[in-house]
Amino acid sequence: MFIKSIIFDEDKLKIIDQTLLPDEERYITINDLEEASQAIKQLKIRGAPAIGVMAALSIYIELNRLEKIKKIQTIEQFYTNLNIAIHKLESTRPTAKNLFYALEKIKNFFSTNKIENLSIQEALDKLKQLALEIYKEDQQLCDSIAKNGEKLIFDGAKILTHCNTGSLATAGRGTALGAIYLAVENGKNVHVYNTETRPLLQGSRLTSYELSYAKIPNTLITDSMVASLFLNKKIDMVMVGADRITKYGDTANKIGTLSIAIIANYFNIPFYVLAPYTTIDTSIHYGDEIPIEERHQNEVIYFKNCRSAPNNIEVYNPAFDVTPSRLITAIITEKGIFRYPYNF
Amino acid sequence: MFIKSIIFDEDKLKIIDQTLLPDEERYITINDLEEASQAIKQLKIRGAPAIGVMAALSIYIELNRLEKIKKIQTIEQFYTNLNIAIHKLESTRPTAKNLFYALEKIKNFFSTNKIENLSIQEALDKLKQLALEIYKEDQQLCDSIAKNGEKLIFDGAKILTHCNTGSLATAGRGTALGAIYLAVENGKNVHVYNTETRPLLQGSRLTSYELSYAKIPNTLITDSMVASLFLNKKIDMVMVGADRITKYGDTANKIGTLSIAIIANYFNIPFYVLAPYTTIDTSIHYGDEIPIEERHQNEVIYFKNCRSAPNNIEVYNPAFDVTPSRLITAIITEKGIFRYPYNF
Repeated sequence: MFIKSIIFDEDKLKIIDQTLLPDEERYITINDLEEASQAIKQLKIRGAPAIGVMAALSIYIELNRLEKIKKIQTIEQFYTNLNIAIHKLESTRPTAKNLFYALEKIKNFFSTNKIENLSIQEALDKLKQLALEIYKEDQQLCDSIAKNGEKLIFDGAKILTHCNTGSLATAGRGTALGAIYLAVENGKNVHVYNTETRPLLQGSRLTSYELSYAKIPNTLITDSMVASLFLNKKIDMVMVGADRITKYGDTANKIGTLSIAIIANYFNIPFYVLAPYTTIDTSIHYGDEIPIEERHQNEVIYFKNCRSAPNNIEVYNPAFDVTPSRLITAIITEKGIFRYPYNF
Repeated sequence: MFIKSIIFDEDKLKIIDQTLLPDEERYITINDLEEASQAIKQLKIRGAPAIGVMAALSIYIELNRLEKIKKIQTIEQFYTNLNIAIHKLESTRPTAKNLFYALEKIKNFFSTNKIENLSIQEALDKLKQLALEIYKEDQQLCDSIAKNGEKLIFDGAKILTHCNTGSLATAGRGTALGAIYLAVENGKNVHVYNTETRPLLQGSRLTSYELSYAKIPNTLITDSMVASLFLNKKIDMVMVGADRITKYGDTANKIGTLSIAIIANYFNIPFYVLAPYTTIDTSIHYGDEIPIEERHQNEVIYFKNCRSAPNNIEVYNPAFDVTPSRLITAIITEKGIFRYPYNF
């Protein structure tokens, strides 16, 4: 039913290049850490859960490669290169919690287990096993989130979503879109409205593509049409994903989410956040503690090769915003449906 | 200081083709009614006041042309062709009040004055005079609105605007941007934030261009960044234009305006509408009576010439939305600053 964002098979890592969608469906091979890091930075792969899975798998790809070309010959070299890889990936994108979750998991495994007792091959096998666990776990998380989120979707529901939270954003069926896929599999009729999600158009490029691929009725709007949509089309609920959720439920997600939450609140429309528990960062209490990535001005000035504004103008381009918990009707994770006030 | 959207000189009508901006500054000649009508429909000229002025001038251009090629030889033929032209222009765009104001003014003049007593040349002269009056009136209206609106702008103000309300949208200095131009002329420092205004990018293409041309500090955002901007940049006020205002102050304006008004209300930021009194339609009490133009899906699917979504998807593309009067802090016209509750 849905497209795979990441394929890992016989020690080969491939991802669908999301910057080319919907024009071209091209899977590219990730051969080393540099390619992985660039793919994440350039958003060839994006979506908080997918980034985490991709990071874990690419560390294995890199260390396996270094071992093959004899750059890793001792377990100390394995460990050094593991840390270099983790460090490099940590600096790719600052906001998504899941990336750090995956990297921490690998870091913790190798610092708590007596790595010096392992052969290089054993260490590589362990690393591969761990990365595959993270991959598999994400798929299972998607299924569990979908099962919980699906309960909120009634037959005939009109749902607004933002950005892309489907199979392209995760290793599985997705978070918000995952729940919608499951509702449709269970025989419910739904109609999905999705924002194009400027500046990088993950909504029009990816979500419209995924929904049409899955034959789910969908209507595209620009981000500016949300209030008009609510006024005229009787939307029943908003379902979005998350990049980081604080202990008390403040939620960082794709820029534009806060606007939608405020407008949904004004129109009294339920606003749901769907994300794995790994997105929750209990070390942070409130939203203003979440680092927000600001990206290059050309993302706003250009779309693909089309320039939309004069050169040399100033641009404000935050990639995410933070929705305060009180605007969120419920946060749905694999562990259940949580309602305000949140205390994770 | 500002660019002219319409030039009328020696019976020649020229407009700057706004669909080519900011890539190319090209003035095109409007030779007849068909070209005028297409230019309005295709948004080569847009902005409610500018459309009204353009319509008036193009009726003169058309009737003068018909007289030159001997298609008008009697005063009855003048009157018939006048009505044909008015009728054709009425059907170009349904929402802007100013278009109907200009057309009504011409219609009324020729129905209340004894046209059968005029020679064709006298009728043409009257028509030209009337069109120039409408042109001149719009420039004066801009100046008066600016004078009133400028009072609300304090030194150091950070102002968010939406779409384009400057000299490209009117025959003069503009409405919301007109007030900002005047504040700068009066020595006040301002910083303007402007949305790109999807789908047709009047903000990034036209407002960024106008502001940079006038050397006013400006920062471009996508429509999705409004809430984040309010949260992070301490915006002092929103200033927008209007396409139609009802008796009780409900205001139709470029799609996205309602979203901004709701978000401004949430953050307690003053939300001002600046427009000539001709934008007010006292025959309509409430916003739901205003006809809203829906435009072609390709405006959303494409970003200039770049496709951003799969083909054959459903799109919702209203060109305007209606902001309820209670979300509007003040409506500023040439007659003064009006505050809620409105009763025009």
